[in-house]
Amino acid sequence: MQLADSLKTLIRDIPDFPKPGIVFKDITPLLEEPKIVREVVMALAKCYEGRKVDAVAAIEARGFLFGFLLAQELNVPFVPIRKEGKLPYKKIRQEYSLEYGTATIEMHEDALKKDWQVVIHDDLLATGGTANAAGQLVQKLGARVLGFSFIVHLEFLDGRQLLEREYHCRADSLIAY
Amino acid sequence: MQLADSLKTLIRDIPDFPKPGIVFKDITPLLEEPKIVREVVMALAKCYEGRKVDAVAAIEARGFLFGFLLAQELNVPFVPIRKEGKLPYKKIRQEYSLEYGTATIEMHEDALKKDWQVVIHDDLLATGGTANAAGQLVQKLGARVLGFSFIVHLEFLDGRQLLEREYHCRADSLIAY
Repeated sequence: MQLADSLKTLIRDIPDFPKPGIVFKDITPLLEEPKIVREVVMALAKCYEGRKVDAVAAIEARGFLFGFLLAQELNVPFVPIRKEGKLPYKKIRQEYSLEYGTATIEMHEDALKKDWQVVIHDDLLATGGTANAAGQLVQKLGARVLGFSFIVHLEFLDGRQLLEREYHCRADSLIAY
Repeated sequence: MQLADSLKTLIRDIPDFPKPGIVFKDITPLLEEPKIVREVVMALAKCYEGRKVDAVAAIEARGFLFGFLLAQELNVPFVPIRKEGKLPYKKIRQEYSLEYGTATIEMHEDALKKDWQVVIHDDLLATGGTANAAGQLVQKLGARVLGFSFIVHLEFLDGRQLLEREYHCRADSLIAY
């Protein structure tokens, strides 16, 4: 079976989660298939073949899963991006808009070196609000966003266009809905 | 350098986090060293050499990091254990006591099969309250706790004794303070 077909079988729709009207893409059945997990990591890494990646940064909590595997596969540092108040050391913060209100994510201030080329990973790309805030954190430390890496992409939202326009790089995903 | 020495260099103390009087063990410098990350995963896996592991369950968010790598290394399913309200599908819950008040963790009800032998991973073992609640979730689904797997263990607390007594299995860690 092609990887995209395996993924569509292993990512299940949960209607009305986390709130009415939203169909949540649940990747937990995928996590139970170690061979497909391996294929996912290889496919994510393939997007950066022949390119110099200095670090993978990923957004908690689901982004930590494949983000850390991707960093191992590429043999580069892993940088956690966390919700406000979770990281223990000196940090920088970025606020961003949600449908109602705002949210804040943070990164340690010593997490990236100047001019590093950084891949930002999360499991799912929707509006791109969180990923965009992650990109701003990377830039605040003087590093560059080399690309965005997702497993799932919700095509009916405009997240991909936003990220590719703002960062002049690709926002890749393995499957789209 | 021995792995334990590398780890002591790469895990930094953050005084008074998350609150006054607590010295937090920050593993983020370790995450930036892919070769040591690899050694950590191999060392965690070695504890289960020759034994039948059916799944690795890990506790969000930091437990997701090495927990998912360990599941890949052992070539078994990965099961996320999350804080209340985060998992989207039908789930079971376990409340446990904190110093002040209580907390709740959850697991999908279809995450484990009956009689599976499960390894529970988290980055750090302190009092063992969260790990014990995770063990109870595993047992509620008719599975068995084969062992607990940690990177860091705070020896002056009695978490290890609690877990080994309750589950008649080992609670291994790579370094102790």
